[in-house]
Amino acid sequence: MADDIETRPWQDLGEMAERGDARRLEEYLTELSTGESARAMARLSAEERGKVLTTLAPSDAAELVEAMPDPQAADLLGQLPAERAAEILHEMPSNEQADLIGEFGREQAEMILAAMDPAEAGEARHLAGFAPDVAGGLMITEYLAYHQTASIEEVVDDLRRGAERYSDYDVQYVYATSRAGVLTGVLPLRDLLLARPGRLVADIMISQPRAVHEEATLEALGEFFDRHHFIGVPVTDEAGRLVGIVRRHDVNEARAGRAGSDYLKALGIVGGEELRSMPLLRRCRRRLSWLSINIVLNIIAASVIAAYQDTLTAVIALAVFLPIISDMSGCSGNQAVAVSMRELTLGLIRPTEVVRTWLKEVGVGLLNGLALGVLLGLAAWLWKGEIYLALVVGAAMALNTIVAVSIGGMVPLVLKRLRFDPALASGPILTTVTDMCGFFLVLSLATLVLARITGG
Amino acid sequence: MADDIETRPWQDLGEMAERGDARRLEEYLTELSTGESARAMARLSAEERGKVLTTLAPSDAAELVEAMPDPQAADLLGQLPAERAAEILHEMPSNEQADLIGEFGREQAEMILAAMDPAEAGEARHLAGFAPDVAGGLMITEYLAYHQTASIEEVVDDLRRGAERYSDYDVQYVYATSRAGVLTGVLPLRDLLLARPGRLVADIMISQPRAVHEEATLEALGEFFDRHHFIGVPVTDEAGRLVGIVRRHDVNEARAGRAGSDYLKALGIVGGEELRSMPLLRRCRRRLSWLSINIVLNIIAASVIAAYQDTLTAVIALAVFLPIISDMSGCSGNQAVAVSMRELTLGLIRPTEVVRTWLKEVGVGLLNGLALGVLLGLAAWLWKGEIYLALVVGAAMALNTIVAVSIGGMVPLVLKRLRFDPALASGPILTTVTDMCGFFLVLSLATLVLARITGG
Repeated sequence: MADDIETRPWQDLGEMAERGDARRLEEYLTELSTGESARAMARLSAEERGKVLTTLAPSDAAELVEAMPDPQAADLLGQLPAERAAEILHEMPSNEQADLIGEFGREQAEMILAAMDPAEAGEARHLAGFAPDVAGGLMITEYLAYHQTASIEEVVDDLRRGAERYSDYDVQYVYATSRAGVLTGVLPLRDLLLARPGRLVADIMISQPRAVHEEATLEALGEFFDRHHFIGVPVTDEAGRLVGIVRRHDVNEARAGRAGSDYLKALGIVGGEELRSMPLLRRCRRRLSWLSINIVLNIIAASVIAAYQDTLTAVIALAVFLPIISDMSGCSGNQAVAVSMRELTLGLIRPTEVVRTWLKEVGVGLLNGLALGVLLGLAAWLWKGEIYLALVVGAAMALNTIVAVSIGGMVPLVLKRLRFDPALASGPILTTVTDMCGFFLVLSLATLVLARITGG
Repeated sequence: MADDIETRPWQDLGEMAERGDARRLEEYLTELSTGESARAMARLSAEERGKVLTTLAPSDAAELVEAMPDPQAADLLGQLPAERAAEILHEMPSNEQADLIGEFGREQAEMILAAMDPAEAGEARHLAGFAPDVAGGLMITEYLAYHQTASIEEVVDDLRRGAERYSDYDVQYVYATSRAGVLTGVLPLRDLLLARPGRLVADIMISQPRAVHEEATLEALGEFFDRHHFIGVPVTDEAGRLVGIVRRHDVNEARAGRAGSDYLKALGIVGGEELRSMPLLRRCRRRLSWLSINIVLNIIAASVIAAYQDTLTAVIALAVFLPIISDMSGCSGNQAVAVSMRELTLGLIRPTEVVRTWLKEVGVGLLNGLALGVLLGLAAWLWKGEIYLALVVGAAMALNTIVAVSIGGMVPLVLKRLRFDPALASGPILTTVTDMCGFFLVLSLATLVLARITGG
């Protein structure tokens, strides 16, 4: 098998951890890419993973943990002694600390916070209190702020003195504040470079800079960065005090994560991402919670068929077309769902524009319904040579395509307006309604012309 | 209707363009967010859109065009006189120019390139020659490079002199090159700030900086930025010459775009994104190309049912369960597809690890298959009171769930290895195989115990 001839870095990793060889372990991990090291860690046993993290220096362990998806990283840190977990967290930027603390159970989070430096723990606790997708949850608290009456010389001196500490900071701007901590200006590093040393921050800063509130949503932040070509934006509290910086790339990552999670939800993975390194029972339970709702909806939809058993017995060929119409309507409807989800994400439609969306979809439904209806009718006619069977099947396919694209286009907007998650609920609602409607159309049309089909 | 009481910015926009009032138009657009202005433009007629773009100053028009999705933006520019389109393109960063030129038809692209400044056109043509998701297609050519023997003073002087021209640049680093243009070093703006003016670039630059080749893939770039906390990375050609800069946020945006396009493909929108502002026939044709493949696959799968017409006639209740088993197996299989796609994107599995993936999925299939089989069997028993019917339906559901998760988990890996797009092809392959298998299981098991069911 091709599996066997590949290199297996996790075996080496496990052995090095076993031997407690910190230096070789660190050298070895430096050579691996983020993906490779995350992959290698996922292959180790829980015990081996713990050994790797306790063998490495905290800063190297932090880098390794940051490479892993959050749920996996939190699991792993949770298995370490609280002191060790706190040491590793200390080496991470504030927003990643907060994300991981949000993933821990309550009790576990308290133990680890107790082991951290009190000031750092207080800040992490504060950040973890924000939802992960508002400015407060995305911001970092590593930034440079100076009093607005400081001179350029003083700022540059401080930058020189603190060079080592600031080397982890993502410094592109320096912020200016009033005595009360209120944000009053921003100074791009470039302007600092070009300014005469004697001038004051207040003289050359951009006054009344744009800032976002700590509760600003991911949509609002995305819109902000779409509108302004900034690398980061300062975050302020109710009183206008500077509390952190949200960086463009953290916003982009959160948006990419949302696109990814919409994709997962559309395919039936809900309640957070699943990784194959999770325990089997947890994976089964999560998937089953979704499947068990779906099977009930399916049984409800199929009950329409049960009501037409006599027609089915008379024209058994109809049983062949029921799953086809069900599946094809689902496909047509899901295309409309996808376009609506996309346009919602891009801000090209608002949730209120239900009528406009429907008008745009019904044309597609008419034309594609006609095409699919003719195709399926033709297939039925070629198979059985019964023109009425072909007409019933084709007409049902055509009509149900119109129904499916109409519902598919509108459902995400309606769900969004009702504050449900459209990525999650659009699929099941769509397929249940289109299945019921499709089964009803085929079987009731067939019942109407029953004499002609069986007689034909 | 709620639609009617909302403000309608596109009406104002159309009126202002009609009156040719450039200043009011510009002021008005400045107030709108990116999403709002893109939305407003989408609502105007082709003629009105053209008027807006010819009324505005080229730089304002460029900002508006950048706010729109690429295909829409290219359509719009294509309708303008080539000279006007060239003026607007001139105001955009090089990578966005190239993206739009890639969207034009060949003839149209040539006309617009002919109207551009020859040097700029040559560069745009060169950039448009790269695939959109390699370093060459993502890079910008607006960067600052100095000869390595220049002094810090000379560099800072040039920055001062060129301040206006550079103000559009996203300057965080200055690059150092040899006489032949080969990249030799990089200098963060911060180091430039802290250096004594008399020193040379070569003295304080970081030598042998990390760079990527112009053909580096999006995956490789993603991995690079995961591994290194850089804002941008220099791009070099075969000879090691500096040719551009890829910025982290452009890579993140391209990745987010790919996650979004995987989502669209999974729901059946292929061949580029669809917008409802596109012509009806183009939207129908695109969706139909996907649907028509699907309907053929569906007919093939349903032909299994046709082979068992006698069994179906004898136990017509089976017809109720066929669509349920088909749909539920699709759901279970799609969950496994989603997890595999996610793990492939995160780099947690490699396409060769088919056996490992299967082992991880088959456990889920066994347990969830058991649960769903019992549920569906119970439903059958409650409805008809026939224990053999319940056993047939339950067993078929359980077995087919195992088949579905196995195929769902492995298919994306196999497709990726064969260099097919897994987001696109996994769904249809999965549902065709699981439908055929599911129909066969129900009907062949029922045939085996036919005497007992009808006798029961």
